[in-house]
Amino acid sequence: MTALFDVLATDGAARRGRLTLAHGVVETPAFMPVGTYGTVKAMTPEELEALGAEIVLGNTFHLMLRPGTKVIAAHGDLHRFMHWRRPILTDSGGFQVFSLAKLRRIDEAGVRFRSPIDGAEVRLTPEISMDVQRTLGSDIAMAFDDCTAYPSTHAAARESMERSMRWALRCRDHYANGAAPGVLFGIVQGGMYGDLRRASLEALLALELPGLAVGGLAVGEPEAERLRVLEELVPAMPAARPRYLMGVGRPEDIVQAVLRGIDLFDCVMPTRHARNGHLFTSGGVINIRNAVHQEDTSPVDPSCACYTCRNWSRAYLRHLDRCNEILGSRLATIHNLHFYLDLMARIRAHIAAGDFAAFARGYLADRAAPAAPVA
Amino acid sequence: MTALFDVLATDGAARRGRLTLAHGVVETPAFMPVGTYGTVKAMTPEELEALGAEIVLGNTFHLMLRPGTKVIAAHGDLHRFMHWRRPILTDSGGFQVFSLAKLRRIDEAGVRFRSPIDGAEVRLTPEISMDVQRTLGSDIAMAFDDCTAYPSTHAAARESMERSMRWALRCRDHYANGAAPGVLFGIVQGGMYGDLRRASLEALLALELPGLAVGGLAVGEPEAERLRVLEELVPAMPAARPRYLMGVGRPEDIVQAVLRGIDLFDCVMPTRHARNGHLFTSGGVINIRNAVHQEDTSPVDPSCACYTCRNWSRAYLRHLDRCNEILGSRLATIHNLHFYLDLMARIRAHIAAGDFAAFARGYLADRAAPAAPVA
Repeated sequence: MTALFDVLATDGAARRGRLTLAHGVVETPAFMPVGTYGTVKAMTPEELEALGAEIVLGNTFHLMLRPGTKVIAAHGDLHRFMHWRRPILTDSGGFQVFSLAKLRRIDEAGVRFRSPIDGAEVRLTPEISMDVQRTLGSDIAMAFDDCTAYPSTHAAARESMERSMRWALRCRDHYANGAAPGVLFGIVQGGMYGDLRRASLEALLALELPGLAVGGLAVGEPEAERLRVLEELVPAMPAARPRYLMGVGRPEDIVQAVLRGIDLFDCVMPTRHARNGHLFTSGGVINIRNAVHQEDTSPVDPSCACYTCRNWSRAYLRHLDRCNEILGSRLATIHNLHFYLDLMARIRAHIAAGDFAAFARGYLADRAAPAAPVA
Repeated sequence: MTALFDVLATDGAARRGRLTLAHGVVETPAFMPVGTYGTVKAMTPEELEALGAEIVLGNTFHLMLRPGTKVIAAHGDLHRFMHWRRPILTDSGGFQVFSLAKLRRIDEAGVRFRSPIDGAEVRLTPEISMDVQRTLGSDIAMAFDDCTAYPSTHAAARESMERSMRWALRCRDHYANGAAPGVLFGIVQGGMYGDLRRASLEALLALELPGLAVGGLAVGEPEAERLRVLEELVPAMPAARPRYLMGVGRPEDIVQAVLRGIDLFDCVMPTRHARNGHLFTSGGVINIRNAVHQEDTSPVDPSCACYTCRNWSRAYLRHLDRCNEILGSRLATIHNLHFYLDLMARIRAHIAAGDFAAFARGYLADRAAPAAPVA
């Protein structure tokens, strides 16, 4: 039997790995484009495959509200509903309940909240989250957790983390109690407190889950805090299991986290930035709405080989944006996802070649440098 | 030298033809998707090619306002700006000036109007329209005309038509006075009056333009009026020149016009309908927003071979529409354009086979029948 996760090479703390899931193989470190409502915004599945995306993320919270599990179940699962053949990781709904839903009431059983769609009362518990993710047919289901606010006192972070750990146990037991194509990952919480993070990890290790995520980061904390938490936590995580840093982040954040041993990432940044006219380039992020691009016949990034940069100019993309043309969002999304997925491919190659630390130093220095003209 | 237009076969008044233009060949009867702002909304050029589109329409009025001819000229022409390698027909701006612009002042020289974008005063004359279309690099440029309102008195329709004919002469002379990759088509006006239509055609024949369009229809007149105008006018148009019915229309309108000898069509209907959730099917137009589609796992049209119908359900398309997902507009546009372009391919095949009249009878009877459940 194939292992869920193989570490193919290491370079310092960085790992070159391979995840073998129900719907296919994911080479790590990997970035997961976010497909909130059963579509990575503006993209077809075929375009995502062509860009090299091997796994996408779906949102339990959004999908249970629209279109609802009954509709998706009628199609078989989320893969068939959205026509995506490769793996899917679904979040648990926990983060969205705590960041999006109004009038939420939390108790030991779970959470009740008002749907932001129609105001109806909705209930989400560890067991319901597992049922929904099983219906979605997720290759990787995530434990339902209580997301710790930032900043939090030690006492508040501890109470929240301990609830998440009790819920993680219920998730494991409920997920095991029924057929599912996927595997369940636990989520380490504990805010910015090293002792709580270690206690959370210990609790999850007792559950013997096949993969572990780091939650509660990228919630507004300074970069130095985030890196400190990773440096304290990740070395204690089992080397044989995949490690997923949830919701991170900028390209430089990803490089920093890979340096510290993280394997999986997701973030709305490339797709959301694209729709707002912010495009990633080797010289920094440009805003295509700026007037300086009005007559610029050069591509977004002359060093980029993506479909957008091969065929269109900055002036054309700016024109599409000004006219609110759908093609503008499409071409920008293709470019930004190419930027992220190409970065991941380079990261993997440098780890395999054993020169990732040097690559990371150069990359981080370039991103920090104000030298390149950024408009 | 290749002729601009070859009539390959006739079947009654219907013609199977071939237009040979600067950027390629167009098999007729042909439908031109509308690319107002240098993009057929929601589509890439490659997707249009895959659907079989051989020519698209661009809008002089819109493109001269945004991004302006200077930006397009910096890229070479509209083909290079929008990365479309096949032929482009551009309208003259006349129709838009008369239907969209506020505070327009018309005199013998041309028209002044306030830009709907920024309120600036803009001038458009036969000469300016020709210059813009030359800069766009259009394969087919259209004469700048004064569009007759519907309804109009005979006197008003005559005054408007006669101005259009004087402007057509200026267009021809100005277009001939400079290099251009394309050819200029004249536009027959005259409202619903047969004598004025004949006088307009006579005036254009004297200019010896290589193609002729029928303007001033699809402006709100009853279908019977439109068909009467075509039946009176088209037989008098030279058989050797291509005939373009501007702005028409529904699938059944296209079949009716082909029966009467028309070769070229354009209409925003398939693309605009798509973005509003109206999808063409062999059983009639459905509104994907209707609740009846909420759990429907079947495709939009089981008899359709398009990318959308091969891979997604009505329930998925409805879900995308409810969530305002860009992919919803994309998949609906692909489906509707496939419907139109597939219809044109069937029309061409039936004319070549000599059984177009029977096909048209059956098609029109099916479209008129209330039998199929339309939701």
